[in-house]
Amino acid sequence: MSVKPPVEIIPETFSYVFSPYREPIAHVAQGQRVIIHCEDAFESRILSTGDLPSRSLADAKFLNPQTGPIYIEGAEPGDVLAVSIEEIEPTRDFAVSCLIPFFGGLTSTSLTRTLQPPLAEKVWVWRLAQGRLVNDELGLSLPWQPFMGTLAVAPDLEAITALSPGPFGGNMDVPDVCPGNTIYLPVWNQGALFYTGDTHARQGQGELCGVALEITSKVTVVFSVLKGRQISWPRIESGDRIMTVGSARPMEDAARIAYAELVGWLVGDYGWHPADAYQLLTQAGGLYVGNMVDTTYSLVASIEKAYLGRSRANT
Amino acid sequence: MSVKPPVEIIPETFSYVFSPYREPIAHVAQGQRVIIHCEDAFESRILSTGDLPSRSLADAKFLNPQTGPIYIEGAEPGDVLAVSIEEIEPTRDFAVSCLIPFFGGLTSTSLTRTLQPPLAEKVWVWRLAQGRLVNDELGLSLPWQPFMGTLAVAPDLEAITALSPGPFGGNMDVPDVCPGNTIYLPVWNQGALFYTGDTHARQGQGELCGVALEITSKVTVVFSVLKGRQISWPRIESGDRIMTVGSARPMEDAARIAYAELVGWLVGDYGWHPADAYQLLTQAGGLYVGNMVDTTYSLVASIEKAYLGRSRANT
Amino acid sequence: MSVKPPVEIIPETFSYVFSPYREPIAHVAQGQRVIIHCEDAFESRILSTGDLPSRSLADAKFLNPQTGPIYIEGAEPGDVLAVSIEEIEPTRDFAVSCLIPFFGGLTSTSLTRTLQPPLAEKVWVWRLAQGRLVNDELGLSLPWQPFMGTLAVAPDLEAITALSPGPFGGNMDVPDVCPGNTIYLPVWNQGALFYTGDTHARQGQGELCGVALEITSKVTVVFSVLKGRQISWPRIESGDRIMTVGSARPMEDAARIAYAELVGWLVGDYGWHPADAYQLLTQAGGLYVGNMVDTTYSLVASIEKAYLGRSRANT
Amino acid sequence: MSVKPPVEIIPETFSYVFSPYREPIAHVAQGQRVIIHCEDAFESRILSTGDLPSRSLADAKFLNPQTGPIYIEGAEPGDVLAVSIEEIEPTRDFAVSCLIPFFGGLTSTSLTRTLQPPLAEKVWVWRLAQGRLVNDELGLSLPWQPFMGTLAVAPDLEAITALSPGPFGGNMDVPDVCPGNTIYLPVWNQGALFYTGDTHARQGQGELCGVALEITSKVTVVFSVLKGRQISWPRIESGDRIMTVGSARPMEDAARIAYAELVGWLVGDYGWHPADAYQLLTQAGGLYVGNMVDTTYSLVASIEKAYLGRSRANT
Repeated sequence: MSVKPPVEIIPETFSYVFSPYREPIAHVAQGQRVIIHCEDAFESRILSTGDLPSRSLADAKFLNPQTGPIYIEGAEPGDVLAVSIEEIEPTRDFAVSCLIPFFGGLTSTSLTRTLQPPLAEKVWVWRLAQGRLVNDELGLSLPWQPFMGTLAVAPDLEAITALSPGPFGGNMDVPDVCPGNTIYLPVWNQGALFYTGDTHARQGQGELCGVALEITSKVTVVFSVLKGRQISWPRIESGDRIMTVGSARPMEDAARIAYAELVGWLVGDYGWHPADAYQLLTQAGGLYVGNMVDTTYSLVASIEKAYLGRSRANT
Repeated sequence: MSVKPPVEIIPETFSYVFSPYREPIAHVAQGQRVIIHCEDAFESRILSTGDLPSRSLADAKFLNPQTGPIYIEGAEPGDVLAVSIEEIEPTRDFAVSCLIPFFGGLTSTSLTRTLQPPLAEKVWVWRLAQGRLVNDELGLSLPWQPFMGTLAVAPDLEAITALSPGPFGGNMDVPDVCPGNTIYLPVWNQGALFYTGDTHARQGQGELCGVALEITSKVTVVFSVLKGRQISWPRIESGDRIMTVGSARPMEDAARIAYAELVGWLVGDYGWHPADAYQLLTQAGGLYVGNMVDTTYSLVASIEKAYLGRSRANT
Repeated sequence: MSVKPPVEIIPETFSYVFSPYREPIAHVAQGQRVIIHCEDAFESRILSTGDLPSRSLADAKFLNPQTGPIYIEGAEPGDVLAVSIEEIEPTRDFAVSCLIPFFGGLTSTSLTRTLQPPLAEKVWVWRLAQGRLVNDELGLSLPWQPFMGTLAVAPDLEAITALSPGPFGGNMDVPDVCPGNTIYLPVWNQGALFYTGDTHARQGQGELCGVALEITSKVTVVFSVLKGRQISWPRIESGDRIMTVGSARPMEDAARIAYAELVGWLVGDYGWHPADAYQLLTQAGGLYVGNMVDTTYSLVASIEKAYLGRSRANT
Repeated sequence: MSVKPPVEIIPETFSYVFSPYREPIAHVAQGQRVIIHCEDAFESRILSTGDLPSRSLADAKFLNPQTGPIYIEGAEPGDVLAVSIEEIEPTRDFAVSCLIPFFGGLTSTSLTRTLQPPLAEKVWVWRLAQGRLVNDELGLSLPWQPFMGTLAVAPDLEAITALSPGPFGGNMDVPDVCPGNTIYLPVWNQGALFYTGDTHARQGQGELCGVALEITSKVTVVFSVLKGRQISWPRIESGDRIMTVGSARPMEDAARIAYAELVGWLVGDYGWHPADAYQLLTQAGGLYVGNMVDTTYSLVASIEKAYLGRSRANT
């Protein structure tokens, strides 16, 4: 869509909150191809198997540095921001994962408290080689399937830690936030105030230990602004599916949000009766866990476009 | 594997509990092909769009009739029962779904109580035609992808309603309990005491409204008993994946059970170190919602066999 | 109320399930004073600080032995059983508590799974002395405030482990199930089929480590049967309050059940409009945690009788 | 303690977030008696039974206006702020409560989504008369037991909606935040940046319908700063009990936080071994629900000081 030369955004400092209180680091136009440089979730403090989190992260007051906010021209409160993700290019030749004390899906945490000691720390380094991720210690090679763990707009009045997912997007850790897909977010501030970071070379559903294959990267996106639309939670569109993301605890609340929003999408844009949308999603909907480790859990509900009939155009 | 002629089991009465207190309705040998006739979840009380649940189910003291228990020769407490599902054949030419007051994923229920009135009832009838499910009112045609909503062994000492999933299997409503796959269940009683029913022509992930495409059917299975193995929760094996099912509330507890059991499977049968299994599942595991509507929620964790390396044989 | 001589029930064996499938161990009349002998939750396997659970309970296939079922003459399905608790008398001069691996409120458990090792085991023995409980090691003396941890009727068709609370009562671990109070339970079987056990010398709210001050005892109760009443969950009446118990996971579902049932009680027996009952309970209701450790959590909602106005008689 | 004349703080505008990004509206010294004027949660938009929320709140972009931030001299990051509450004086002669669509404990909400319509709206007005709250329509008179629904310091880097409770205090809706008690909060910012509001004439445990007896008021507090102490969540001290507040979803996580923090308090300040603290709280701890309606649920764990033995001084 864009014929202008791409704009490249290289941050000098990072944000650890999705905040309406920070000055934009860049202004971009709709339709403009934008290349955004991102740090990894640990701000490159963990680079080898010896960089145990309790030491390497000891001086890190905050984690998950975000590039932003980016001001999108023409975005106003009440609009919808569409983010078309074109490409994620790694900027180093390896990814890291690790076990962090009291963080992850199979350990007690600061929110699910017990009196037990933490699991032992460990760091894994995976090489990027010929389009795959290779861990020699494990003898494993996995496909390169990158996505942005974090992608957000600034909330309304609030400034929320970059570790949180929410209605504003944020740290959803949802693998469908990937090249080829378009993400829709509500807009609460002039210019939308977009943030992204926490790129992952790949991740399983749930992000079980809490740390995916973390990379530094350049992500290429194109923004557009939808006027006269109203959404409450993030939406994702791929070639053949539409998806909604709900983030909440307990996990069933995230599931309910995701599916209720998907019912609303079918009703609002495709003319379905709510009960019939409920029936279709019962028989053909998808529902997977994006993350089971963050401040709230993110679940993704989806349906194939082929089943939806006449659609209201999204752009 | 079996060369004996198949045994056919046509129940005269049904069980509404997974119970060690009922007499077996049949004894079958390992390796024997067994054809089991199943009622639908409503015992055929809902057959047309006019059969609203509040009337049609008014005289039903219990729902979800099960065929069983079936006594498997040689199964003893402490063993594992393997159920290879070969085929599910419908025994009528339509499937039904419906909205039942205070039951389902997007309504308050008897467990998640509110003071709001229930959603309006509705029945949908889907024709089986040329390997698809067709609803003329909705203008939809969906693929035939049948599975057993309910499949269980009798628990230890308890008798549990056929509406519940649990360590014994039960009403998991997990689409991977389907032809081509093998289900592994713990054995607590002599003969294992197998039950099944609640067959579905298909279902989306989550079984959103609580009622899949319910069918009557004949299911063909072959049982075998694994001695000297010990499992705590149901496991599923397909051609290319191994899966574990956790059932609990809140949903994150089901997710933790499923993934912790999968870590245990990798450790026990594939020789992985727990931390490395945790890492592999973080980067490549699958985690979807089977049901978000039953007495406990069922989540399915999985991993491709291709990543597991040398395997201990399962049979 | 009763003028007949009391009946004493000394069980020869115990039940580890609340089950409609067991023969009554005694038949009693309404209005009869009944003295029931109860084992402690560990069937007296833990008697000193050296009796660590991993050893002492190693040969215990089941825990929480119940005395029952007791058949109450005249109780029929659809009735309400009222149990007036008159007295709990200890039958030994000490109580025990302990830490059991992977059981309790501040540890991962079989339902809330992690990969962490369990907390260290420990046993505490508390002496009964002059109406108080004394632990010399801790230098503590606490008041004697005994109650029945477990009190149930047999469910409908199901047999449920004695470790579970539910609509049938069961292992609620609610300190208000104590002398002076009356407990109301739904009746699903002829004779109601009453079970009790798991008496506690006292317990804090939540039963935090999972094990209260466990005692053997004789409990004195009087049964009566209310015809033409219908309840769905246990109710408790003290001199000045009415209370409802909801048991579910997550805990907010237990809270919703308890308060929704209390709204129903005010509507049904005291003539309140649901919205006004909702308002009264908002401003004056009580809500405490009975247990946060059992298979489901039990919460107790309550309101002072003084606020309820004209009452329908309960007996 | 204070001999200086009291300082009175009358806000010109309010804050709808607990934010480190706002300029202090006042600076106060430790030991100074401070009188803070507070709006009610609806900013006085609901004053009579005809002021239905859907109309009266239609122009309210945000709710729960807070007075603050107040800068406390000498408070630095890492300190503990102690807030001694001396008095809450109403500034009008009535309190209001209401049913707000999709808000409350017995309705589906924006987080626990269903497809059901909301409950009907309703407003209740309660007169303050002779130290009691009187509702003529209901024929009820309840005691005046005022407390601050909201009391907070600014979080670290984040700005959080005034509708949320959390480690910073916030919208806990805990009746023990009342005159006579001292609240301890972690300090993350220079001057602590204190906020308060949402005063309640009284409230039941759970704040069932989501709206207590909302009043405008003047609250009198005295601040002090504890150096060299470190706490993670709010603590409360009354004449005879110490209490901790955990806020999370699901509710069991709030319970775990509250009790784990109380174990930590006993270990840190009273020299208890963690296992023994766990035992004491099991047998004698209190655990009630403050709110079951806010963005996270707040539970209060407590123990009588009489059981704690030698204490480290708190001031």
